[in-house]
Formats: sequence, C-alpha cells, structure tokens
Amino acid sequence: MNRQVLLRRRPTGRPVADDFEIVDAPVPPLADGDVLRRTIYLSLDPYMRGRMNDGPSYATPVALGHVMVGRTVAHVVESRHRSINPGDFVAANDGWQSYGVSNGKDLQKLDPARAPISTALGVLGMPGLTAYVGLLDIGQPKPGETVVVSAAAGAVGSVVGQIARIKGCRAVGVAGGAAKCDHVVRELGFDACVDHKRGDLKDTLAAACPGGIDVYFDNVGGDVLKAVFRLMNQNARIPLCGTISDYNATEPPPGPNLRPLLVKRAMIKGFIVFDHNDRAPAFFTDCAAWLREGKLKYREDIVEGIDNAPAAFLKLFDGGNVGKLLVRVSPDPTRPIAS
Amino acid sequence: MNRQVLLRRRPTGRPVADDFEIVDAPVPPLADGDVLRRTIYLSLDPYMRGRMNDGPSYATPVALGHVMVGRTVAHVVESRHRSINPGDFVAANDGWQSYGVSNGKDLQKLDPARAPISTALGVLGMPGLTAYVGLLDIGQPKPGETVVVSAAAGAVGSVVGQIARIKGCRAVGVAGGAAKCDHVVRELGFDACVDHKRGDLKDTLAAACPGGIDVYFDNVGGDVLKAVFRLMNQNARIPLCGTISDYNATEPPPGPNLRPLLVKRAMIKGFIVFDHNDRAPAFFTDCAAWLREGKLKYREDIVEGIDNAPAAFLKLFDGGNVGKLLVRVSPDPTRPIAS
Repeated sequence: MNRQVLLRRRPTGRPVADDFEIVDAPVPPLADGDVLRRTIYLSLDPYMRGRMNDGPSYATPVALGHVMVGRTVAHVVESRHRSINPGDFVAANDGWQSYGVSNGKDLQKLDPARAPISTALGVLGMPGLTAYVGLLDIGQPKPGETVVVSAAAGAVGSVVGQIARIKGCRAVGVAGGAAKCDHVVRELGFDACVDHKRGDLKDTLAAACPGGIDVYFDNVGGDVLKAVFRLMNQNARIPLCGTISDYNATEPPPGPNLRPLLVKRAMIKGFIVFDHNDRAPAFFTDCAAWLREGKLKYREDIVEGIDNAPAAFLKLFDGGNVGKLLVRVSPDPTRPIAS
Repeated sequence: MNRQVLLRRRPTGRPVADDFEIVDAPVPPLADGDVLRRTIYLSLDPYMRGRMNDGPSYATPVALGHVMVGRTVAHVVESRHRSINPGDFVAANDGWQSYGVSNGKDLQKLDPARAPISTALGVLGMPGLTAYVGLLDIGQPKPGETVVVSAAAGAVGSVVGQIARIKGCRAVGVAGGAAKCDHVVRELGFDACVDHKRGDLKDTLAAACPGGIDVYFDNVGGDVLKAVFRLMNQNARIPLCGTISDYNATEPPPGPNLRPLLVKRAMIKGFIVFDHNDRAPAFFTDCAAWLREGKLKYREDIVEGIDNAPAAFLKLFDGGNVGKLLVRVSPDPTRPIAS
C-alpha cells in the first residue's frame, strides 16, 4: 500500500495536524514505459506552505484531497522504462507519499558513488541551486564584500554563506539560538553569526558587519530585513529568496520603509529558483567540486517516517531544524543504519 | 545687495515659514578668475527637503544659517574668467539667492537659441536626466510594455511617461486631481492617467493597466507603490526615484509587504541622478531632439520673487504645481514678459 499525506483543508495561519490527512492508497498498476519507485527521502521546504494556500502565486496550489507536493529521492522497484532499471536511485517529484509511478520523464538518475543520494534534495539539489543563483547571479558578490544571510543554519542559508567565503567575501549569518550560531561559525566556517533571539539585532548585526552590508540574501523578511536596511552600503544588493517570517501570517505585515533603498542606490530583487534551471550544470559542477574538496559542508536533520511529515514540516517555521530537513520514508540502502 | 533664503532651523515634519530666514547680504568682491551672475530662475525640487534634515543621507545637509541649496539659471553680470563673459547665460548651483560668485568651474553655458534657458532646470536638466536614466537604464522598458509613473504631472514624471511613449510603451500616469490628469493625457499624450484623489487606487489603476504593470517609476512611495505591487507582471522593474509621500514624516512609515517582489521576480532599485552623469550627453542629445520634434512637451509653474520661494516649495508636497516648479528671481531677458 502507498502511504500518503493529503491536504485536507487550507490552513489559516500556522498549519495544524487536522489540515492534513494520512491515508493508505493502492499502488497504481504500471503502464508500458512506467517506473515504480519507493520513496527513501522526502524533502521538506518552506515553499510548501505557499502551496497549501489558495489564490495566485508563482505555482499552482495543491488541490484539496491531493497528495502534498515535494521533491523526493527514491529507489526504483519496478520498471517498464528502457533506461531506468530496478535498483536505480532517482530524484523525483513524488510528494508526501511512499511510492510514486510515472513514465520516467520527471526522474533524474542519481549515482550513489558520486555523492550521498540525499544531497540531491539539499546541497546538490534545489536548495543548493537556490543559494548559488541567488547569491552569485542576483547578489553579484565581489571579493572583500560583506554578505549577510538569514536562516543561516538552514538548507539554503548554509550554502549561501559558504559560497560567499569561497568567493572571498566576509560571510555573516543570522540564525536563532546559540547552538545554530555555533554550528554556522565553527562547522560551516562563516566569519560571524548573529543570534536574532538575543534581541537588539540592529546592534549585534552592526557589530558583526563593521564594513556595512553589501549583499543580503534574505530568506526571512521582517525584522532582519529592517535591521539590514540600516547597514546597507552604497549599491547593496538584496536577493529576496523567501519571507518565511510571514508565511503563516493571515494578513501580510508591512515591509520596511523603502527610503534607504534610494539613499543607498540599493536593489531588492525577488527570484524563484525554477527560472534558473539553465544554471544547474554550472551549479552542480561547482558545488560537487567544493563538496569533494571539503570547502562546502552540510548537515541534515532527518525525521523518521512519513506519518511524522506534518509535524516535521512545522519545524521549518519554528526554527527547529539545523541543516536540510528530510523525512526518511524508507531505509536508505546506501547508508549505514547508524547515520 | 544679495537677497538670500537661509535655513534657520531644521523642520519637524512639514516645513513652515519660520524654518527659513530671508536676509540681504553684500555681494562678495570678485577675485581673479571669478564670475558674478544674477539669478534668473531658481529650481525648486523635492530633494531639497532631505537637505533640510540632519543625519546621514546621500548628500550633506544644508548647515543652519546657510543659503538653501538649489540649481539656478543666471545671467553673467561681471566676469574675470577667460571664457565666460558678461551677458552669458549659465546654469549654476547658487541656491536660493539672487546673486552668485564662483571661479566658474561649476558653471554650464547655455545657448538661448537652442532651447529656452529655463529648460536647463527641467526637461533638459536634472529632472530630465533623472527621468531618462531612471526609466531607460534602471527600468529597461521594452516596446509594448506598460510603464506607470507617479507624480506624472511633475517635472520628472511628465518626462518619464513621454519617453515611455517614444519607446513604444503604454504610459500610465498617477496624479492628484482631474486637472492634472487631463494635462497628462491631453497635453503630454500619456495613454491614461489615474487620479489618486478619487480613492480606490487599486481598482482605477487596474482598469488603466489591463495588461498589468511592467515598469513603475516611483516618485512618491506609499499607497501608490502598494497598489502597483498587486498589479506587477513577472519580472517587473521599479526604479525608486523618490518617496515624496514621506518626506515630511517624522517617523518613517512602513513600506508595502515585499512578498509580491518574490512571487513576481520583481526588482526595486533606488538610484540618484548624480551617479549617472556619464549619461548626460546621450540624454541631452535625445531630449533636445525630441523637444525640437515636438515629441517631448513640458510645462512650467513659475512663482515670482525669491521671497516667495519658501511658500512655493511647499507646493511640491501639496501637489500644488503642474510641471517644473521655478522661482523667477529676476526678469528673463530671453522671454517676453507675458509668458
């Protein structure tokens, strides 16, 4: 049977357990050319909150009664496809369920010898590409500049700061809590990390950025953006990647006063990673190399069992995860059980 | 004697008469190389409000007790400069006073046969260049796109919409009151103009922009920007030129929620015209040609007498002027008295 997490109703504000429904459905029969795979890892990402809402956005909402969307890493169980075989590992878009079936056009084969298969959902997947294009193409950092990134211990932010360092910039993270800040500086090698839970963000951020801020990679919006506005250098660039601070807001809160943008000739630009798929080859080449060379590190926060996906999802909004949040839907045959 | 308007104290909110002081000072003696000129026109521009404040901005504040800054058109009275002669017309930065003296390095000679000398303060001066670089370089309009500009009847906005039309765009103005909107559409040739005083800006702007908004040239900030955010097309560009709606605010008001920037991959970029002086030759060539060809029209709102400069200045914040606001400090010998 195929265990599925459906969207039962559209959340008002913060999602609750009753917004989801967990069901068992039969695995559909395979037509000619089809591929059946078992989900190993399900990626949980902030954008999914937007898909739970109705109304216009950059992507179609999840329909009520349908499986929640999401990218997955899976193990091929049965195949009527010419070039995909049972035992292959693939990245897929199967969503919050334990099996997926398709004609294979949406599958990307993974080589476990090249990188751990779970990285296809994180540092070598959509979050990594988001960090890469947002920082390099939109942010255009130059050596010696100061790059600030919020949600610095998260899947995207952790990559942003490390690429900033690789490119010769000062990397300053903003994260919630001493443990995350410690991880960001000691494990990921950022120059500094500011704990937004300690209050007085304006002063602590200023102290961490004595040369001002040239690039702010914004994952959160809200108060951090406001504090950054006071510290922007001339011609600062702000790639706007996410506004997680208001994803659960029932009324969109106001933004910061925009006058500082004018005074500093600064730029804010929203971007969506799927417009930048042309950059995927360069991203993959660079990041795979940086991983091999030990210049790019990552951490995963793995929750066991698809039934726990709804509760795990809320960690993203509570700051409860460090690194890439994944659900292990079935055992990963490439990885020792202890990990 | 040199009649001067000094900054007596820094305004709190909206400037009042007592923030200024009008004095008569002796005309300074000329050193070798110096040029003495009589001010004909003083330009009044919104940026001057910022110079009345203390604190960091993109330019040094006017010091208390000093002459208010401003660009002027003047008539050379006496010259010890090799290439500037009595009777020459020049553009200068003499501020709110009836005479100016300098070594001439800051002067730009004007040819009254080429264009009315007052245009050096408007359509062929700083406001024109602001419109030109903000629209073309920052806004990057493409033929067929919709360009919206606020303060559309003002010195900058009126040029923005006309250049948008010249470049094959749909030009939509936002202005206060039926008379201004009428001027913008009938005289300046915009496709439409929305009266923000009629309320319900969201609906009236939507009706004027059936294809959405691709470029919004923002002179005002505040509610117009908020309404534009709802109507942005994908990859919209917002050159942020001014935020006149809050120049007199004692506390900077919040801005719009920035989430729509992300959803629409839109960009806001602040700019300051004096960073773009390299574009002045192209601007001047283009705009002078468009003027000659009748493609670019302009109106001037001329207030008589430097003593009226403080009161005239407030028209900018009350929406009291149509076209370029000038003070005629002394008679313009190039222009019939009736004009």
